[in-house]
Amino acid sequence: MTYCVGMLCRNGAVFLSDSRTSAGMDNVTMRSKMRIYEKPGDRVICIMSSGNLSLTQATLAMIDDDLVLGDGDPRKKHIMNRQTLYETVRYIGSKVRTVEKRDRAALEADGFAFNINLIVGGQIAGMAPEVHQIYPQGNSIHATRDCPFLQIGEAKYGKPILDRGFTYETDLCEAVKFGIVSLDATIKSNVSVGPPVDILCYETDSLQVSKRMRLEKDDPYLAEIGRKWQDGIVKLVNEMPAADFGKPALGYASAA
Amino acid sequence: MTYCVGMLCRNGAVFLSDSRTSAGMDNVTMRSKMRIYEKPGDRVICIMSSGNLSLTQATLAMIDDDLVLGDGDPRKKHIMNRQTLYETVRYIGSKVRTVEKRDRAALEADGFAFNINLIVGGQIAGMAPEVHQIYPQGNSIHATRDCPFLQIGEAKYGKPILDRGFTYETDLCEAVKFGIVSLDATIKSNVSVGPPVDILCYETDSLQVSKRMRLEKDDPYLAEIGRKWQDGIVKLVNEMPAADFGKPALGYASAA
Repeated sequence: MTYCVGMLCRNGAVFLSDSRTSAGMDNVTMRSKMRIYEKPGDRVICIMSSGNLSLTQATLAMIDDDLVLGDGDPRKKHIMNRQTLYETVRYIGSKVRTVEKRDRAALEADGFAFNINLIVGGQIAGMAPEVHQIYPQGNSIHATRDCPFLQIGEAKYGKPILDRGFTYETDLCEAVKFGIVSLDATIKSNVSVGPPVDILCYETDSLQVSKRMRLEKDDPYLAEIGRKWQDGIVKLVNEMPAADFGKPALGYASAA
Repeated sequence: MTYCVGMLCRNGAVFLSDSRTSAGMDNVTMRSKMRIYEKPGDRVICIMSSGNLSLTQATLAMIDDDLVLGDGDPRKKHIMNRQTLYETVRYIGSKVRTVEKRDRAALEADGFAFNINLIVGGQIAGMAPEVHQIYPQGNSIHATRDCPFLQIGEAKYGKPILDRGFTYETDLCEAVKFGIVSLDATIKSNVSVGPPVDILCYETDSLQVSKRMRLEKDDPYLAEIGRKWQDGIVKLVNEMPAADFGKPALGYASAA
């Protein structure tokens, strides 16, 4: 499985992804799920993917082919020449639909689900940063001020911390920490999600990739966050007031 | 949906359940998912349930019928006369199988899944406390020192905090706090899980229900835990060291 999260803030957007892929217990491998397309001063587009690896790779391969074959030709659609991020997302969605038409029947015939989920975000010059999610059907939703983060893959383990602490007004640097803690919780609780962790911290109007990092399994920063988080929340639970069982119980059902 | 967790400790066992049931957006109701059977000095048995309400109620109704019809008659099996907790669990599992034989086909014909999951725990005099989980197939697993908690329903949101902090050696009073925080995280992130929260804190060899409580939606203790937890983890994230994007990025993929 996978865990990717895209977080929209007033000052930019943060993207995090894990790198574990599995096709059965004896076929666990490591692959980055984050692709970044950059034309400094013009646009930065980040794509994160979850689902069947052959399907997500097929989608990205078609996007890359269009770029190689069509770059410089304004009549040909590609990922770097759409006018808005929404148009870019529709273009990527059309590739998902192409893959669906081509591969779905063959997969389902052997009991495999058709399964592609993408997060696409970034900024095009003159417009605001955006974060979108593309479904296996090729349609999409986008993050808003009220719902500022989108997740794909094993989303549940890492959701409570974002629900509690992350908002559109969160500082970019703090958003990165929330993202790492969210991903760390997922890695801790689900063996199918694992490092390296790819992080892109995109600042509004920078229009270039200046803050990007990959944290390997034994990265001391990742270990430090994990340790401090673990110690901190255990301490926090210990500091909670104890339940008072002295009160009479309600709704008591017993059989003797 | 539902969230229930059963936690096995050196000094006893803790059981927590939410109370929200839903059969569609316009049919959300409140029902306790915790049943306790008690014969002081002899045994305490706690059953928590998740799944299709008509199926879990059918299972419990059959257990209650056996008790009413068979109590006092040692030849008739019922929930209060099995010799061990494992035998009790097998007895309950046989009821799940009876419901399966009777109702599964009718449900599946209309597209409903056959879905009963139970946590059963407690203690019988002369034996150690145990916590078991019964699957829709009627078979079971039990908690151990290495895997001291079992969850049913919406289990993922509340798993990270238990993975990090709860162990078999955790003090009973602390275990209750871990359980409340785990349930609170689930309530916060999933609208299908909600209060009242039922809690049973069972002390080894007490062989009676002495610590039981129900926390209603507006219970000040539940609100206090929620507020302190929220403030505490946000502060904890803020205190984490910031990511250092000064290092050269690895595995960088870009297209310009």
